Amino acid sequence: MAPVLILMGSQSDWPVMQAAAEMLEELQVPWRARVVSAHRTPDLLATTMQQAEQDGVPVVIAGAGGAAHLPGMLAAFTTIPVLGVPVSSKQLKGLDSLLSIVQMPKGVAVGTLAIGAPGAANAGLLAAQIIGSSQPDVRQRVQAFRQQQRDKVMANAELELGE
Amino acid sequence: MAPVLILMGSQSDWPVMQAAAEMLEELQVPWRARVVSAHRTPDLLATTMQQAEQDGVPVVIAGAGGAAHLPGMLAAFTTIPVLGVPVSSKQLKGLDSLLSIVQMPKGVAVGTLAIGAPGAANAGLLAAQIIGSSQPDVRQRVQAFRQQQRDKVMANAELELGE
Amino acid sequence: MAPVLILMGSQSDWPVMQAAAEMLEELQVPWRARVVSAHRTPDLLATTMQQAEQDGVPVVIAGAGGAAHLPGMLAAFTTIPVLGVPVSSKQLKGLDSLLSIVQMPKGVAVGTLAIGAPGAANAGLLAAQIIGSSQPDVRQRVQAFRQQQRDKVMANAELELGE
Amino acid sequence: MAPVLILMGSQSDWPVMQAAAEMLEELQVPWRARVVSAHRTPDLLATTMQQAEQDGVPVVIAGAGGAAHLPGMLAAFTTIPVLGVPVSSKQLKGLDSLLSIVQMPKGVAVGTLAIGAPGAANAGLLAAQIIGSSQPDVRQRVQAFRQQQRDKVMANAELELGE
Amino acid sequence: MAPVLILMGSQSDWPVMQAAAEMLEELQVPWRARVVSAHRTPDLLATTMQQAEQDGVPVVIAGAGGAAHLPGMLAAFTTIPVLGVPVSSKQLKGLDSLLSIVQMPKGVAVGTLAIGAPGAANAGLLAAQIIGSSQPDVRQRVQAFRQQQRDKVMANAELELGE
Amino acid sequence: MAPVLILMGSQSDWPVMQAAAEMLEELQVPWRARVVSAHRTPDLLATTMQQAEQDGVPVVIAGAGGAAHLPGMLAAFTTIPVLGVPVSSKQLKGLDSLLSIVQMPKGVAVGTLAIGAPGAANAGLLAAQIIGSSQPDVRQRVQAFRQQQRDKVMANAELELGE
Amino acid sequence: MAPVLILMGSQSDWPVMQAAAEMLEELQVPWRARVVSAHRTPDLLATTMQQAEQDGVPVVIAGAGGAAHLPGMLAAFTTIPVLGVPVSSKQLKGLDSLLSIVQMPKGVAVGTLAIGAPGAANAGLLAAQIIGSSQPDVRQRVQAFRQQQRDKVMANAELELGE
Amino acid sequence: MAPVLILMGSQSDWPVMQAAAEMLEELQVPWRARVVSAHRTPDLLATTMQQAEQDGVPVVIAGAGGAAHLPGMLAAFTTIPVLGVPVSSKQLKGLDSLLSIVQMPKGVAVGTLAIGAPGAANAGLLAAQIIGSSQPDVRQRVQAFRQQQRDKVMANAELELGE
Repeated sequence: MAPVLILMGSQSDWPVMQAAAEMLEELQVPWRARVVSAHRTPDLLATTMQQAEQDGVPVVIAGAGGAAHLPGMLAAFTTIPVLGVPVSSKQLKGLDSLLSIVQMPKGVAVGTLAIGAPGAANAGLLAAQIIGSSQPDVRQRVQAFRQQQRDKVMANAELELGE
Repeated sequence: MAPVLILMGSQSDWPVMQAAAEMLEELQVPWRARVVSAHRTPDLLATTMQQAEQDGVPVVIAGAGGAAHLPGMLAAFTTIPVLGVPVSSKQLKGLDSLLSIVQMPKGVAVGTLAIGAPGAANAGLLAAQIIGSSQPDVRQRVQAFRQQQRDKVMANAELELGE
Repeated sequence: MAPVLILMGSQSDWPVMQAAAEMLEELQVPWRARVVSAHRTPDLLATTMQQAEQDGVPVVIAGAGGAAHLPGMLAAFTTIPVLGVPVSSKQLKGLDSLLSIVQMPKGVAVGTLAIGAPGAANAGLLAAQIIGSSQPDVRQRVQAFRQQQRDKVMANAELELGE
Repeated sequence: MAPVLILMGSQSDWPVMQAAAEMLEELQVPWRARVVSAHRTPDLLATTMQQAEQDGVPVVIAGAGGAAHLPGMLAAFTTIPVLGVPVSSKQLKGLDSLLSIVQMPKGVAVGTLAIGAPGAANAGLLAAQIIGSSQPDVRQRVQAFRQQQRDKVMANAELELGE
Repeated sequence: MAPVLILMGSQSDWPVMQAAAEMLEELQVPWRARVVSAHRTPDLLATTMQQAEQDGVPVVIAGAGGAAHLPGMLAAFTTIPVLGVPVSSKQLKGLDSLLSIVQMPKGVAVGTLAIGAPGAANAGLLAAQIIGSSQPDVRQRVQAFRQQQRDKVMANAELELGE
Repeated sequence: MAPVLILMGSQSDWPVMQAAAEMLEELQVPWRARVVSAHRTPDLLATTMQQAEQDGVPVVIAGAGGAAHLPGMLAAFTTIPVLGVPVSSKQLKGLDSLLSIVQMPKGVAVGTLAIGAPGAANAGLLAAQIIGSSQPDVRQRVQAFRQQQRDKVMANAELELGE
Repeated sequence: MAPVLILMGSQSDWPVMQAAAEMLEELQVPWRARVVSAHRTPDLLATTMQQAEQDGVPVVIAGAGGAAHLPGMLAAFTTIPVLGVPVSSKQLKGLDSLLSIVQMPKGVAVGTLAIGAPGAANAGLLAAQIIGSSQPDVRQRVQAFRQQQRDKVMANAELELGE
Repeated sequence: MAPVLILMGSQSDWPVMQAAAEMLEELQVPWRARVVSAHRTPDLLATTMQQAEQDGVPVVIAGAGGAAHLPGMLAAFTTIPVLGVPVSSKQLKGLDSLLSIVQMPKGVAVGTLAIGAPGAANAGLLAAQIIGSSQPDVRQRVQAFRQQQRDKVMANAELELGE
């Protein structure tokens, strides 16, 4: 299986986007992460997606902040499913990032996740769910992950004052 | 191939959510649409997703407005990929719907599209892209659709005053 | 009297939701607090509310952040009054939590309080007011609490520069 | 049983607030509606609430738009549970009304419902749920209403293109 | 001259509202500051304003955060000009306070200043401008303050890198 | 008495700003209205305010939409109290106008009213309250207006379904 | 002089973007308008900008709505100054378009104008101002336009009730 | 070449606005920075712009926060292109500054950049692009800067967990 490709606009997005890699790691889905900037390396958008199609990349995860054009521009250059992660911006706390990623016009789609690390983790999870459609072992690991989550909640459900 | 399942919280969401069905129709991907309300028929959430897993539904598309709990609750009951469409609300114009759908916590993911009909159409498109990962004919139809879009833009690119 | 049930989506909500327990404690209304996650333990929503109805729980207080589906989903499974507390989210400061909780569709109601600890405290207070409708001693303690608040304001009403 | 008191800041709020009265009517809970303006008749706030306490009013529903001080000020003058309905404002679409009603400080609580008519209907419903705590016949009618809602959704769940 | 009355909902507002007192101090306009809570001491709203009218208070400055009903309720009980200062709230950064204070309905007016300490200072300044309408010495001190501000800007207008 | 000066950035603001003139008319306070654009006639800002000071104008009311610089710039050129009215903008519904007017820095103050016609009416009312500080007949007319408002509310306070 | 290039993401943006062409027409600056979609014709972004550089295009004006990636992506492919116009979106009224266009990261700049037709007109005006830097006749026409605006305001400055 | 003029409302804006000077420095474009306050030194607006026109200043960069009238008012007094930088405000995080600067009415234009230091840097960059229209050496330095940015991204594009 070709690795899930995790792209981001800047190295400074990696502390957030790592959560996607960690989730894929946990679900034993291969991944590869790179910086591609929609604005500083715009000529790489097309070639990166052409290479990804040749390599058989199953899902692209793209994170960006502020004007956050990366996920939408990658989606414009491929038919591989693209998942977008709004990275929180300093001033507007990611509301700008979210709207820039999610409000795509009809005809080019980005499946958008929550702002920040929880969204990055969920991008990894949703990528695994997509891959799991045709790979039963991945689906089983997703189901096991879900079961673990449930168990953790139930193990410590009761709360006392002062805790 | 089992049909893509399009679910929505109320019949009044259908004028928006139809755009998902129309896109799937155009890409020759089978679909089925039903009303399931997170709030009025909460007991159907689990059973609907169990049935979908048995039927081999490849993708679930869920639309809802306002508090918009449907996509997230469906995602909580399945590992099938769930795509969410924020239906515009009367007062807050879908900003509430968008935030309620996209801001999922780590561990349960909804791939969220734009507010309203463009988002619904793109949910259909992204579902086809996901199915296209393992079905080359669907991927080819998505690519052809993209090419058509490009041709339409280029056929009428020049603009004059008074048009 | 069965205890007021304080539910929240995650242990990390407890520092905020404790304010509800403390208010109930102050008003001598019994309470019990548990973690139930709408997304990670969705199958517990129905059973938790069935048990609450059997136990005669008078009011349910539910806190959640971000997509914040817990209060609305609990309300969907019971006719016990449900009060919702938006827990502040890291990025959008609880505006997402607030809209996800308050913008319920016609037919399933959540009485929503302010974002964060003041809202949690007021959920405890409003629960006591509801119980006070049929239990005069609780109503009297609410009235006494109000009087104390008034006295505290009046005891230190005058202000000087440099204080 | 003393009637639920529905108060609003202006006669122009009645088209929205009627939805509360209609829901109470449907659930056979008595109600009475009046205009009391926090700003134009501030001296009536205290006397209206004193009278309500004497009459044994079980719940107060208050609707207001814009600065929307009515629900919070009524709550300041009584320990009867107060439910607030943000009436949509012309310019800011009720976001101002919502924040003015819900963001109460610790110590005085308003259980806030959704903006506009759905919120007004749900205020009626939640009032009935509160009354149902001590009146089994009201609780049964709420449960029957819920069941009807469920049946309506299920009777017309299947959707076709062109509908 | 009776002092300008500076009122606020809580002692915790004083660090912000002190800026109003300091500005009045600088302009040699007498002032007095007190806590009056719209929600915790609602019965004091009417009496405080009656006393202010008897004392000949020329302007009332009122600061409050969150639901922020104090300025509007004071204005409802008097025809003395009321200036409102939105105190920043923890979660929504004073946007709730601002909308709750400024969006008054036709018929009861609050002159609203900026969120936080700059707004409090400007409330003091505007109060002095209002008093200056009939007291030439106050107007002159306002004009002198303005001139000083201008001089300060011009004394250090040139900027270098590394400063 | 010199008339209250009502200024606005464009003739298109007059349908909103007329509400200020009508309120002053009702309270028998003289007024005069003119278009002065902060952006298209910036050189008139200083001269208009110099003339106003010479004429003894007691209060300036300024309305503007969008970037809405007029009230703040007039305030920068005078020590006459300036009241600002945010005129609703086409796209952002006056939120931009409101923030541009109210968020003045320390040292130059604008007393800001609600967005649109209610705010314009209240600017007229607050101007009359300011004038009423030194003119008892104006204050009495304001008090009579308030009483009339109260009477109107009370004359039609009771509401029935179907009205 | 090569014409100013007016680009937009869709023909449906032309009713708004025409205001840029009309302003340039009025200032006798040549222009040319075309549809180039960042998402549907992404491969044209680079070639369109290369051609523009060869032709000596002095300024690019780009309008787009929603995710609105066009202005930023054009700027990424050229060093010609790019001015961006947020076209109002159906649901979020152009707030999404504005943030997507203006919140560009350090290193690639878009000079952003107001939402909708006023912003489009001003993009034309600012383009003329930029060209006017090196072409005195264009600068003179801009100055004359400004003078006309001033004259129009002053010709009808006085306002009466009932107009 | 006359220097680019960088103006700001307060010395406290310099830490943000320095980024404009640094970018111009890097591109070897002369600049000069000064404090001019729209509100505290309004009489300097006209004279500063007259002097700038006499000096042949090619571009004005103006930064301001909150009500942020400076860029628009400078634009009103000149036909030199004006670029505006919203400086982040304490409470509303620069959303107020952004709207106050960008939402200019038709007829007076401000090319607006992103909130904060990235916007200031981009104002410097866009100024250089504008100057580069008629000065090939400046354009070449802009192109070289762009190439460097691209090289930096590509030199460190690959990412590993734990970095």
